[in-house]
Amino acid sequence: MSLQHALLGVLEARPMNGYELTRFFEAAPRWVWSAPQSQIYPTLRQMEQAGLIEGQKEVRGTRLSRTVYSITERGLAELRTWLATPHPPPPARDAFFLQALFFDMIEPDRAASVLKAFIAEQEQLVAEWRAHREALLAKETDLIKERLKSRPAAEHDRIAALKAHVFAGQIAVATARAEWARESLRLLEA
Amino acid sequence: MSLQHALLGVLEARPMNGYELTRFFEAAPRWVWSAPQSQIYPTLRQMEQAGLIEGQKEVRGTRLSRTVYSITERGLAELRTWLATPHPPPPARDAFFLQALFFDMIEPDRAASVLKAFIAEQEQLVAEWRAHREALLAKETDLIKERLKSRPAAEHDRIAALKAHVFAGQIAVATARAEWARESLRLLEA
Repeated sequence: MSLQHALLGVLEARPMNGYELTRFFEAAPRWVWSAPQSQIYPTLRQMEQAGLIEGQKEVRGTRLSRTVYSITERGLAELRTWLATPHPPPPARDAFFLQALFFDMIEPDRAASVLKAFIAEQEQLVAEWRAHREALLAKETDLIKERLKSRPAAEHDRIAALKAHVFAGQIAVATARAEWARESLRLLEA
Repeated sequence: MSLQHALLGVLEARPMNGYELTRFFEAAPRWVWSAPQSQIYPTLRQMEQAGLIEGQKEVRGTRLSRTVYSITERGLAELRTWLATPHPPPPARDAFFLQALFFDMIEPDRAASVLKAFIAEQEQLVAEWRAHREALLAKETDLIKERLKSRPAAEHDRIAALKAHVFAGQIAVATARAEWARESLRLLEA
């Protein structure tokens, strides 16, 4: 289950409580993985039971207490094993391509409207990922700042470049999708 | 829920029973949408209750009976409305980019192995989609043959071209992903 691995990867940068993790996912809806609060808390409890993370109650004032989770040795080993294993491709489930497959059932100008909205949306995603990529290359995101604290300085550039490159991948995919949609518009008009 | 729309789109080509629909999805795991049998039967029941499809019991011999589902006017209207509506992008959930994001935590040669497996997998997908695209252009898949029976002959080429183009889109995305993975390999070696 990938949310577990996303959480392990984030917690490897620094311990966080459920509220901070929820905020992290909310603030980055276009990161590589998204998760609503309703999934995060139960997943944290399962991961704690499995020994992948460790919760520590933090008492604040007289009544408030929050559980701060940190990754355990076992969690780190699980994450590293998952990272080093090739996984089969997920089942094909592309709602937009599904929609496009039946465009012959609606009028061409209605299909064209959907395609134009899709192009705008992909361009918006590209802009967001481009900004995130730049921030990573500049080592300016909160997460990379935390993470680099535990890494040798000589590796900082390489780590930032590797992470930034993932967003170059998301940009390449969204660009390919937008270009495909532009070709579809030409095909509809033909 | 996109499975409903996938089923409506398939049933628009011709009425089918649950077994045939399950076989269709099993035979096309790299189509635009995939679904296991465990999802198909309950979804068909929900769709029948909602009046989107209509089941007709087909008695075969003295004991066997199968329910053949066909799309209703209401189902057709629902499908057309969905097709003509721009939908927001789904939440970002790309397990492979998530994996790649943490490649700095494993040895470069282990990350390289995962990337090479990914490239091979994307190339395999490209080959499958290319074959499917050719079959659509030649109007040779079972589904397009059924579908074209209810369409004017003058539109056959256009319909086949539109559908084939969807798989050109899947090919473009997989090609962009494979190319990105090749760049990642170069980055890991640097």
